[in-house]
This record gives sequence, structure tokens and C-alpha cells, in this order.
Amino acid sequence: MRIRSAEIIAVGSEMLTPHRTDTNSLFLAGRLNELGIELSAKAVVGDDQRLLTTLLRQSLERVDLVIITGGLGPTEDDVTREAVSDALGRPMSEDADVLASLEKRFADRGYVMPANNRKQAQVPRGAVVIANPNGSAPGLWLEEGSQAIVVLPGPPRELQPMFDYSVSPRLVATTAGTRWRRRVIKITGRAESQVDEVARDIYLALMKAPTPIQTTILATPGQIELHLAAVSADVAAVDAALADAVGRLATALAPFVFSVDGRNLEEVVGDLLRERGLRIAAAESCTAGLLLGRLTEVPGSSGWVVGGIVAYDDAVKIEQLGVPPGLLEAHGAVSEPVAVAMAEGVRSRLSADIGIGVTGIAGPDGGTETKPVGMVVIAMAGVSPSVRTLKFPGDRRMVRQFSTAAALDMVRRALVTP
Amino acid sequence: MRIRSAEIIAVGSEMLTPHRTDTNSLFLAGRLNELGIELSAKAVVGDDQRLLTTLLRQSLERVDLVIITGGLGPTEDDVTREAVSDALGRPMSEDADVLASLEKRFADRGYVMPANNRKQAQVPRGAVVIANPNGSAPGLWLEEGSQAIVVLPGPPRELQPMFDYSVSPRLVATTAGTRWRRRVIKITGRAESQVDEVARDIYLALMKAPTPIQTTILATPGQIELHLAAVSADVAAVDAALADAVGRLATALAPFVFSVDGRNLEEVVGDLLRERGLRIAAAESCTAGLLLGRLTEVPGSSGWVVGGIVAYDDAVKIEQLGVPPGLLEAHGAVSEPVAVAMAEGVRSRLSADIGIGVTGIAGPDGGTETKPVGMVVIAMAGVSPSVRTLKFPGDRRMVRQFSTAAALDMVRRALVTP
Repeated sequence: MRIRSAEIIAVGSEMLTPHRTDTNSLFLAGRLNELGIELSAKAVVGDDQRLLTTLLRQSLERVDLVIITGGLGPTEDDVTREAVSDALGRPMSEDADVLASLEKRFADRGYVMPANNRKQAQVPRGAVVIANPNGSAPGLWLEEGSQAIVVLPGPPRELQPMFDYSVSPRLVATTAGTRWRRRVIKITGRAESQVDEVARDIYLALMKAPTPIQTTILATPGQIELHLAAVSADVAAVDAALADAVGRLATALAPFVFSVDGRNLEEVVGDLLRERGLRIAAAESCTAGLLLGRLTEVPGSSGWVVGGIVAYDDAVKIEQLGVPPGLLEAHGAVSEPVAVAMAEGVRSRLSADIGIGVTGIAGPDGGTETKPVGMVVIAMAGVSPSVRTLKFPGDRRMVRQFSTAAALDMVRRALVTP
Repeated sequence: MRIRSAEIIAVGSEMLTPHRTDTNSLFLAGRLNELGIELSAKAVVGDDQRLLTTLLRQSLERVDLVIITGGLGPTEDDVTREAVSDALGRPMSEDADVLASLEKRFADRGYVMPANNRKQAQVPRGAVVIANPNGSAPGLWLEEGSQAIVVLPGPPRELQPMFDYSVSPRLVATTAGTRWRRRVIKITGRAESQVDEVARDIYLALMKAPTPIQTTILATPGQIELHLAAVSADVAAVDAALADAVGRLATALAPFVFSVDGRNLEEVVGDLLRERGLRIAAAESCTAGLLLGRLTEVPGSSGWVVGGIVAYDDAVKIEQLGVPPGLLEAHGAVSEPVAVAMAEGVRSRLSADIGIGVTGIAGPDGGTETKPVGMVVIAMAGVSPSVRTLKFPGDRRMVRQFSTAAALDMVRRALVTP
């Protein structure tokens, strides 16, 4: 078997509504790319056994590999197993090992397995079962002549490890040596168009280099990512070309580049705090816990995060943070003096090395001519005391996302400076 | 012509990479829904004329309407016009009006039209041209027997007005007044399989009712949604049938149902607090601000959220919340007495009516035999004092999501009880 081309079929009626979309295919596209397998098309189909059967048969007329995601749950809606059985003409039977592991999964939590979960032990003839360490639905690997059919559950945290540990090695065995290699540059504090303007000439040159490098720019509130990719059978050469490209772009875009090794902003900040032996606390008003929530997304963050005060009400700013009432009256809650007092207050009251204060107007209401929606003040106390007033675009959710990124970046820039 | 079913094909190789996805189909799914047209599947295909031709032909074997988006630009890559021409066997010719308007578009900006844009004036025989006020690529409306094919450019700001002003009126004329109507039931505190076991008999009955109602179940950590949908020309009858179905399911699943009107859990809790004139504060350890972040996602939440203390370090629990050190020593930080002391401490120190305390082990480290990863204790003080110890599955992120939902639901259930 030599697998060169693939299609993906995502199953679930919710992905045909205006509210949900298939994101597993993005992960799978990246992995197939790296394996040198071309993804030629993808589809989304509802919980419709007959249509899924038809689409699977049609895909098998075109490509070497079909990956089906979703529709493996225990309910009436879940029709993927049945459709695969129909399309390949392979009857199903109950797999004793799968059944035993399902029963054990429930027993470990002190439950008796509901009767409808038994359906998940049905396996088409000749299928290899792929273990699912994070959920009840096992996956399937089927071979049909020179073609393969892979079936995986829909939840990304179940699908992703199953692909990496069980499917990928099987596919590697069938591909012949070319690999996509990738690097990511992460940037904060700049808009997409600003990054593009600085980087454009560089990536036009990279596309024409002896090892051509493709560049894609991706923007979310508070973060721009440049994705670089190149393909070759000579992994060392392509890695060297990518390293050179990362170096050129990171130099041009410094000091806004915070990561070239995949780490998130909260991980970079966490590593800096840990290395310096510093502990942080935050006083949050408009972000109301989201900055602390992000700082503590990193496992082990109890080593550098003390805690904080969410001072949504001005009385909390006064009583818990010691912000002088006169300061609030004179400057208003969204002001540089109040942000500084919040940062100092939380640092001293929680005995942290660094205190951060965030206050702003997330909207949709509360804006004025001089203090519009999107205005946010961020202060840092203890180490490298500073304060910045920023104006972010977008709705309430975006303003809060931009604010947490800007606060994390203030800490990063203070600590990376030699 | 009577259009009841549709498929969408999005064209563009960039949507087969890990970085971009098709979002036009979300907009189109909403519009088709409102028109009473069922979207049964959607596909993404690269800039591949032969494959697009095949997919279009196969879609036309299944549905009344096929919408193709993208691939209408002036470059070699853009193959949609050619594929439609091939699939329908309709040769193309240059449309003088389209050519004139393309030339005018460039002239208005002081440019001469590049030669490759001339390609955009090619139109398959019998196609109606759809004007594009925001770009150079015109759209197409084609009829083939009782079926329709719609072709629109990829950029959302071009596609959306073209659909609303030119395509939608043509579709309305074919749908004879049928409309899809939807309701959503939101549930927390139950697993998907538990909801399904209770609800299955009801939705099997609903599917066989005089106005058949389709049901889809969707699960995220801490929230299960049941989506109900039905189609009819008689909007009043279908709304009544849906209201009856919602009533039956909500009764069977009470008290775990928190919303049948679209509101999120934080909105439901916010409304209850506002109606009762109660203000809330939270002391968070493992969730570290995410509960307060969620409570304050609701605009106007400063009316009912005072603020809180993120007590990541035990010293913060002692000094800022007044948790007795002896309690921490005797029971450990993750224990019912400590959660209760946190809830009481934050309530009294921040002068709130209700205090919530959350402490737990989010993982991946820190678990023990008696206090495993995923164990979370939530306490409520002030109104309806209570405390619960829970065990959540999944990784750090999921445990924190489950915990915020459980804490919000503890407040909801205390306040809805008559």
C-alpha cells in the first residue's frame, strides 16, 4: 500500500448549522501534510446513514485514504459504524475486548454502563480497533485492497492522540520519505496589516529561495502567527532553511515576537517568572479573572502565580486593594493612577514580587467621549514599574482578550530586557 | 421548481491547509434554514477543475440546489466557471455586459483592466449573471430542469450581499412558504449518555409525530444541548409542536435544564441575581478567575458581580479570605471545610450577598489516591449555604470548564427553587 491522497468526511448535523464548524479537518490537514499525503477534498455530512454511505463510496473511487470523524457515540444519532459497514459490505459484530474496556471505563467511575453504550462495541469485519484513552468511542482502521479507511471520534482531545499514536505510524509505513516541516512565529502588540507590511518582502524572497518556503499569516485578538512550511526529502536542509527564515523574520519583527518554538504567551511568561524566581499577582477589573485564568492554564503555575483580586466593584478596589477613594474620584476607575494603585495594592497585599493592574471599558456600555469602549489601562508594579493606556477594537469579548494579551506582554517585555 | 434540499461546495486549496476553513457555509446554512431549505452536506475542494466537476455532478444527483463559492477570480487557479460549464455540458462565451462592467470598474479607479480579468466575463450558456457590487467576480444563477446551481465569489463581503439581494428572492419564489423553526434546550450536570437515556423515547416519538421534530444532541464540558427542528408551511402549528416538545423534554430532564430560550448559564444566573437584587463574589483556587470571567461575560454584570479573590497560594486563602490555618492543616486545601471557609470569607470581606468557594485539583499533577486529579469542591455561602464534592473527567482545561459550570449551576439551583 502506498498512500498519496486523502479525503476527510466529518459527520454531525450540528456542523451543518450556522453555529458549528468542523475543526478536526484542520488538525488532520496539518498531519497529512507532514506525512506528504495530499488532502484533495473534505466534506461535512449530517447524521444520515445513507448519505454517509454514498459519500464514503464516492471518496473511495478517488483517493487512497478516507478519514471519517464523528458519529461514533452511543446514541441513535450516531451512524458512522453502520455506514462504514454498509459501504464496504462488511457485517458488524460485537467485539468482546471493546465491550470489556467500555464496562471497565464506567466501573472505574462507579457507574454501571448504560445499555446504549453497548452499541460502541460493534465492529465491522476485518477492522482493527484503535484504542481511545480519553473517551468511550474506539476508532477503526480498515484496509480495502490498496486503500485505507480510518474512523475516529469527533472530540478533538480524543481524536488527536489517537491519530498521533495509532494512525500516523501506520500511514508513515506507507509513504516514501518526503516530509513537510513547519515553524511558527508568534507575535503580539501589532495588527495583521502591520506585520504583513514588515514581513511581505521577506516572504516573497522565501518563496523564490532554492528551498521554497510558504508563509501564512493568522490573526486572533492579541496574537498574530506566521506559519512557515517547506517540503523535502532532505529534512536537514529544509530545517536549516526554515531556521534561517525564522531568524530573518523574527529580527525584522522584534520586539513584538514572543515565541518561535511553539510556546504560548502564558507559557513564555511563566518560564520567565520561574527562571527569575519571581511570583506574580494581578488585580483585574474589566478582565475580571481572565488574566489570572490564562496565567494558570500552564501546568505547575502555582510555582509563580500567587493569586489576585477581581475588583469589579470600586468598593473592592478601595477595601481589598487599598486604592485611595480620592484617586478614584479625581481620575475615575479607568485611569493610570488607579491602575498603578491596583498593581501596587495587589503586589503588597498578596506579598508577590510583581503586581499587575488592569482596568478598562470592555463595553458595550460605559464608554464616554474621553474614555471610549475599548480603552484599557495596564500597570505593572514591583519589577520594572510601568503603566500604559491602550485602545482596543472590537466587542466586549475581543477587548477582554486583547487586554489579557497586552498585560502578559508587558510582563514578558519587562523580564526579557537584558 | 420547488427547492427543498441543498449542498454547498467551497472551492479553494487554502481551505485544505491547517490554517483556513470555509466560513461562508455558516452564513449560507443560516440563510437556507430561514428559507426552509435543508442543508444536507457541504464540501471543500481545492482548485481542481476535474474534481469540482465530479463533485458538482454527484451533488446534483442528490439535492435540488447546489451552491458553489469561490474560484471565480482572474487567475489560472480559478476554475469554477470551467467546472460548471463541464458538469452541465454548457459551453461558455464572453458576456459583453459583464466585460463592459469589468472595464468600467477598473477605469473608475484609473486603471486599465489587466488582460487576465477578461476571463471573468466568460459565462456558461443560459446562466443569469448576478451583479457583484463589491468585487470584480460576478455570480451565476443556473437552472437545470427542476434544479438550481448558484455560483458566488469567496470573499464574505462580496458573497453575503449578493446572496441576500439576488439569490434569496429567487429561492423564496421556489420554496412555497415552508420554514424551518428551531428550539434549543440547555442542560448541565449530566453526561451526554445520561441525557440520551432519559430523552431517547421522547425524541423517537417526536420524529413520528404529525409534525415530525428532528433532535440533535451536542456536548461540551459542563453543557449538553438538545437542538429541536421542524419544517412546515404552517409556522404557528410548527411553533406549537416545538413548544410542546420542549415542554416534554424539559420536564423529563428537570432539574438539569437551565435554559429553553437560548440564554447561556451565566446569563440565566445573572438574570436570577438581578431579579432577586443579590450580589455575588467568588473565591477561586483551581479555576483561578475563570468563574468570575464567565460571570462578567454578560454585559451589565457590574450590577450583580462584586468581584472576588483568586487564592492560588494557600497564604492568600489565609490572609485575604480568613481561612483558618488549622483548617488547611487538618483537611487540606481541597476539602469541604476549606471551600466553605473560602465562600464565607469572600462573601463577608467583599460585602456580597452570596459567596462561592471553588477549590480542586485540575491536574495534570497534584493528585493523590484520596484526592485524585479532577476532584473539585464547591461551596456557597450567604444564601442557601451548601457544599458539594465532585469528580470531573478530562484534562486540566476540561476540569476547569466543568468546575465553572458546576459553580454557576449551584447558584442557579439555589435561586430558582421556589
